Amino acid sequence: MSRIIQKYGGSSVANLELIKAVAQRAIETKLAGHEVVVVLSAMKGETDRLLNLAKEITEDPDKRELDCLLSIGEQTNVAIFALVCQAMGEKVKSFLGYQAGIKTDDVHGRARITELNPSRLKTELAKGRICVVAGFQGQNRHGDITTLGRGGSDTTAVALAVALDADVCEIYTDVEGIYTTDPNVCDAARKMDRICYEEMLELSSLGAKVMEIRSVELGMNYGVKIHVRHAHSSATGTIICEEDADMEKTPVRGVTHSVNEARITLLRVPDLPGVAARILSIISKAGVVVDMIIQNQSALPPDETDDGQIQLTDFSFTVPSGDYDTTLDLMKAAGQEIGAAEVVGDNNIAKVSIVGVGMRNHAGVATLMFQTLAREGINLSMISTSEIKISCVIEKKYAELAVRALHEAFKLG
Amino acid sequence: MSRIIQKYGGSSVANLELIKAVAQRAIETKLAGHEVVVVLSAMKGETDRLLNLAKEITEDPDKRELDCLLSIGEQTNVAIFALVCQAMGEKVKSFLGYQAGIKTDDVHGRARITELNPSRLKTELAKGRICVVAGFQGQNRHGDITTLGRGGSDTTAVALAVALDADVCEIYTDVEGIYTTDPNVCDAARKMDRICYEEMLELSSLGAKVMEIRSVELGMNYGVKIHVRHAHSSATGTIICEEDADMEKTPVRGVTHSVNEARITLLRVPDLPGVAARILSIISKAGVVVDMIIQNQSALPPDETDDGQIQLTDFSFTVPSGDYDTTLDLMKAAGQEIGAAEVVGDNNIAKVSIVGVGMRNHAGVATLMFQTLAREGINLSMISTSEIKISCVIEKKYAELAVRALHEAFKLG
Repeated sequence: MSRIIQKYGGSSVANLELIKAVAQRAIETKLAGHEVVVVLSAMKGETDRLLNLAKEITEDPDKRELDCLLSIGEQTNVAIFALVCQAMGEKVKSFLGYQAGIKTDDVHGRARITELNPSRLKTELAKGRICVVAGFQGQNRHGDITTLGRGGSDTTAVALAVALDADVCEIYTDVEGIYTTDPNVCDAARKMDRICYEEMLELSSLGAKVMEIRSVELGMNYGVKIHVRHAHSSATGTIICEEDADMEKTPVRGVTHSVNEARITLLRVPDLPGVAARILSIISKAGVVVDMIIQNQSALPPDETDDGQIQLTDFSFTVPSGDYDTTLDLMKAAGQEIGAAEVVGDNNIAKVSIVGVGMRNHAGVATLMFQTLAREGINLSMISTSEIKISCVIEKKYAELAVRALHEAFKLG
Repeated sequence: MSRIIQKYGGSSVANLELIKAVAQRAIETKLAGHEVVVVLSAMKGETDRLLNLAKEITEDPDKRELDCLLSIGEQTNVAIFALVCQAMGEKVKSFLGYQAGIKTDDVHGRARITELNPSRLKTELAKGRICVVAGFQGQNRHGDITTLGRGGSDTTAVALAVALDADVCEIYTDVEGIYTTDPNVCDAARKMDRICYEEMLELSSLGAKVMEIRSVELGMNYGVKIHVRHAHSSATGTIICEEDADMEKTPVRGVTHSVNEARITLLRVPDLPGVAARILSIISKAGVVVDMIIQNQSALPPDETDDGQIQLTDFSFTVPSGDYDTTLDLMKAAGQEIGAAEVVGDNNIAKVSIVGVGMRNHAGVATLMFQTLAREGINLSMISTSEIKISCVIEKKYAELAVRALHEAFKLG
């Protein structure tokens, strides 16, 4: 007998008929001899509906009250799921976040789980019941409802897998698994059977959008086997697990792209200690999250110049394109004080990345990437690398072409 | 400074515009120097919508899961109310049943409050905040959500008034107060300024529907001053309070009627100990609530008959008309065993009642009632009395005529 966590996303429980289908699936898993804990998201669109309702009332809704409102979507679904199971003759019990023992910190809207006491779930599993838990929500020390942020139901599922020492955490979604690249962009995209946590983290943060990044981190920290699969298909999906020797044989395992970023460059900034910190503190105060940061080394370090004159450098970074106008205005306002000669921006960019743990011990990966893009006539305006990832910023119109060319060059099809 | 509980019913908070209006009212009360706790029902129709959703899934939904689902209507409204107050610049905090300290027994669907610890509400009131509490819900000892049954928000409000030692519990509704009779039936109906708890209890249980009966009992037991008034009018409504000398001067204070009952009669039942108990236990096992019960004395007590032959009697009772068919079938099935010669029923009846504490020391009230009905040619098929009430069962078609005639005869206009 295994203990299995099954998380169903919003598109898999978007209406009563779909909830019946996933309930059927949970029941079949139980009848096959397993203990089953189901985690549900709200029906697709419901959280946005509630959010818009709040925004209609006030532009900046109180976060505690908003959490009270937003948690309703998952509460509705666990009750409906339980009633559906009951109608199918199955023993079941629903749990809101706090009833499942999920304690969080006080940060409404993006709370972190601080403690998870699954004793009540264990009792009900031992009685032969399916337990269905409302995703996305917990309770802080005051007894108030908190929510875990977008994709928070993934975190609920993985945290329950840890606390209940589950054999597998199944993430049911509307795709077959994790692909080597976006199938909408590249026909040759291929579903992977396995991917390691580190690769998945790079893919999540680069916009693959299948799983929420914090839940992958949590899974990695506790070694939870995560199985991403389609809610309405019996095919095996993609297992997210520890890195193994097979994975390392391949230098690149996936190609991903994002067109939701914009670049801002401060030209000819004095190359002095503290300048980068001043620039970034202005941006972070505005609540804008910076992704890539590039600063080119000056021609000579300042103390090696003849006349002690301060060297100048160019400083570039990328931000979400929704924050482009705000950030550009901030930088133009601060440019003079910082000493930049000019502030320019470009909202017409894309970021293309290749990811793979095998990169660590394969030479020539970067070379092949740059050659491939050059052969297609694509110019690189920024480059950023990590141990298992290389990202390039290019003109937006070349994004899909770049993805297809790289997918082929690294033989991912 | 007074401490005021304001409960707004479903029709008073049926949409965002109406919630804004009642929030404005609560804020004005606070600005006048009072401490304000608001109790909200769900939007009108919402509880029925959720109930129908559950019934669509399964005919007999699990009561624990149903409570989880039904409690959503009030949860939505307190969050919206809090956001509305925030948008109006007012300090406010929302509380679900358990956050307000409302503990109940385990009877899902019609739980009773067993404990109410208002310490968190007191803390927030002391900080100058309006507290808005979700009506109709509490939490049992397992940490599960319970609901208090239809009209449960009234109970929440009065229980909070007791626990917080409030000066008044205002029940806001869509009528101006408590009337001498139903204004839809009788143009001469007059709003009462004051009514005592006992009279209100009789009116509630007889179908006046303005306030839930348990909340009136609770108010009576703890001497809570209850003010029933219109949510969108500043006029004074009706105060429900202790009986006073003025009230006793009038023999009859209200006339009420109900057309939602049906009569069942077991003809020629043996007049033996235990027969009534056997009849009623069959009905109560089916979950049907009996209202009036009438058994006529036999001509002679059994031990005074010549030959020791058992005397026969007729046994009648009324049940909600929705339970009529079920109950009639049950009685027909049990009739032979009980020894009834025949079981007959009538779903075409109405009950008309007069209520007043002054009845206790005014002679001739019953006489005037019977004379008035007789003068209109209305036959009485059952009569039942309490210390402050006389009810008559009549043919349904005469219900409104009877109400108007009695209202005039007792000079209530």
